[in-house]
Amino acid sequence: MNHATIMCDMDRPIEPGHFSTCEAGLEKHIVGCCSVDFPVAAVLPAGGSGERTGLSTPKQFCTFLNRPLISYTIQTFERVPWIQSIVVVVAKESLDLMMDIVHRFHHTKVLVVHGGSTRHRSIFNGVCALSKREDGTALVKPKVVIIHDAVRPFVEEDFLLKITMAAKEQGAAGAIRPLVSTVIAATSEGYLDHSLERTKYKASEMPQGFLYDVIYKAYLSCSESDFEFGTECLHLVLRYCGTNAKLIEGPPTLWKVTYKRDLAAAESIVKGTLSESACVVAGGSKRAAELARVLQKSMGVLGMEVDVISDLIGDNAKSLSSKWNFILISMNIHSLSEVEKTLSMLEDADRALLHPVVIIWEAQLWERSVERLTEISSALIRDRTPALIGQLLQA
Amino acid sequence: MNHATIMCDMDRPIEPGHFSTCEAGLEKHIVGCCSVDFPVAAVLPAGGSGERTGLSTPKQFCTFLNRPLISYTIQTFERVPWIQSIVVVVAKESLDLMMDIVHRFHHTKVLVVHGGSTRHRSIFNGVCALSKREDGTALVKPKVVIIHDAVRPFVEEDFLLKITMAAKEQGAAGAIRPLVSTVIAATSEGYLDHSLERTKYKASEMPQGFLYDVIYKAYLSCSESDFEFGTECLHLVLRYCGTNAKLIEGPPTLWKVTYKRDLAAAESIVKGTLSESACVVAGGSKRAAELARVLQKSMGVLGMEVDVISDLIGDNAKSLSSKWNFILISMNIHSLSEVEKTLSMLEDADRALLHPVVIIWEAQLWERSVERLTEISSALIRDRTPALIGQLLQA
Repeated sequence: MNHATIMCDMDRPIEPGHFSTCEAGLEKHIVGCCSVDFPVAAVLPAGGSGERTGLSTPKQFCTFLNRPLISYTIQTFERVPWIQSIVVVVAKESLDLMMDIVHRFHHTKVLVVHGGSTRHRSIFNGVCALSKREDGTALVKPKVVIIHDAVRPFVEEDFLLKITMAAKEQGAAGAIRPLVSTVIAATSEGYLDHSLERTKYKASEMPQGFLYDVIYKAYLSCSESDFEFGTECLHLVLRYCGTNAKLIEGPPTLWKVTYKRDLAAAESIVKGTLSESACVVAGGSKRAAELARVLQKSMGVLGMEVDVISDLIGDNAKSLSSKWNFILISMNIHSLSEVEKTLSMLEDADRALLHPVVIIWEAQLWERSVERLTEISSALIRDRTPALIGQLLQA
Repeated sequence: MNHATIMCDMDRPIEPGHFSTCEAGLEKHIVGCCSVDFPVAAVLPAGGSGERTGLSTPKQFCTFLNRPLISYTIQTFERVPWIQSIVVVVAKESLDLMMDIVHRFHHTKVLVVHGGSTRHRSIFNGVCALSKREDGTALVKPKVVIIHDAVRPFVEEDFLLKITMAAKEQGAAGAIRPLVSTVIAATSEGYLDHSLERTKYKASEMPQGFLYDVIYKAYLSCSESDFEFGTECLHLVLRYCGTNAKLIEGPPTLWKVTYKRDLAAAESIVKGTLSESACVVAGGSKRAAELARVLQKSMGVLGMEVDVISDLIGDNAKSLSSKWNFILISMNIHSLSEVEKTLSMLEDADRALLHPVVIIWEAQLWERSVERLTEISSALIRDRTPALIGQLLQA
């Protein structure tokens, strides 16, 4: 008989790990560290009301896997070592909520300020907050400021680096993407006037980067109407500072959570990242070690990278902070002391944001049920369903 | 003790039910039936290679919940009583696959033809297939032809009706959506040239509708270059027939599955629709009927509409074909004859596309575990995880 017990503490928040792609490898990371020898800050306007999601909560505060969207975005920026500070601009009524998120998810580089009545006023508030304290005394202002939407959580470090370096050299830089739909102009009566040639135009996306002095001057110079109706920072620096922004094509991961369905997509991306690897703790038994190797192979076929270790002591304790999924194998369900020890180590591992899935298999005659063991283990890891915590399953 | 056994046959395909919104109610359906007194057909170009999804399968053939995306889209059109036929245009190498899908999912209004080397050539092939048989003999050609992407499965009947009526009156009509991003023009060196005023432009989407004679003439008259590089049918009918298409703003459900993440979003929409309602079969016992009422209430709080019936016989048998989720309550796990009878009725209900989740609760002292019963039941219904089939859970 092979039993799995599931432990999966959904009351504690989740940390999604790094959203790295093949592109964002170690090498570029080092390049980034070395070449950014000037202060960089980020402004995340997050004052939107989120009408388009069809949800009552503004989308930046919508939660999946127990963590609000904005916290994923902040985390992405916090992980970049050469970004010194992150100003989050929220509506006045969201200040308490935002402070609570910063506290709960241990965000350290974040300054929360309240926004203005429009997107541009909010961004300007954020930019100003980077150069003076609330009491009016001066701060060391950043050389480059990155402006990014709070609802685009999957931006990658190497792309932030490209935008930052281009902004430093050219004064301004912005992400673009190919147009997904043809853009057309309508007559005032609602008929087709003409369609634009798709190859000549691009969608302007975020992040955008600016020399601090350039974006600051543009906001000081712009009109009330710009503050009220403008949508594009790139346009302001062109108009008021004569700075032609460098346009850089970004990856599809720059995508913006706009509709309710996008939250499901974002959750699926985070779940996918969390399911990329697991750690099988096999204990001392030879039979258990055999099963561990077989699971490693069969889950490997499904695309999951599986480490096999005998315990979580010494060097192996590193797994407690690098893995999100643990499969403990016990050969005797009546003697779970080894498993209990491991579980209490997981509890003790003082990572406030740790939120692992733990599956315990009691495995004796496992040869005939390897397929089911694999299927159930990967489904539990992928779905992370809190309703199944504590269940005894059979393979 | 309260046990749930899960039955959920994932080898059989799934029918997602109607993707109705509040807008697409019965009343409008009747309006549609009455006012469309002319023949209407649809052409679904499905020859794309799906490079942008990052998947090896073209996205229209990607499968979720055991059904390929294109079959969801075809089903949406088949459900509309005033659409007579649907031409699906696929690449030559996908002909067999497509025929297999038509067969497997019992599509009846569909004609499969092979496409050309570009999108416009494919659409033209589809349009031609509506007016003559393969042997060259004439067919009754439709008055209006709707062109729609195979990868936009959630279009609603009332919107198809709007497009169809406008096409009949104006010669051509197309769906538009507000622009999500600002559109900008770049210089040849990759710098910002200017940004377009967002309110003046729209994204051109699908579906589009045309008088058959108008779209046919446009294709007969257009140049090789149009066939090769053109993207917009609306542009062709303007240029070659002088027809200014009526533009109609559509709902966000017109959205197009473009990236891998969109497949997750589509799956989540279908799962949401399937989880909207369930049927509790309480059997003859008074205690079971009490639990059924309590579940009805507690699952109702979570947004699920729950019917309670005593069996699946007589009038109640209708539930077999209208519900996607069944919760059977038994008071004695050692006497499952009632449950077995119900299960065999579900098996016998000859709906090839039926694919229900069945949860069996053996419930005796259920008062203290109602919350867990509800939580587990809704998670099983929502996630539809085949790996959990046959498991005995405890509430």
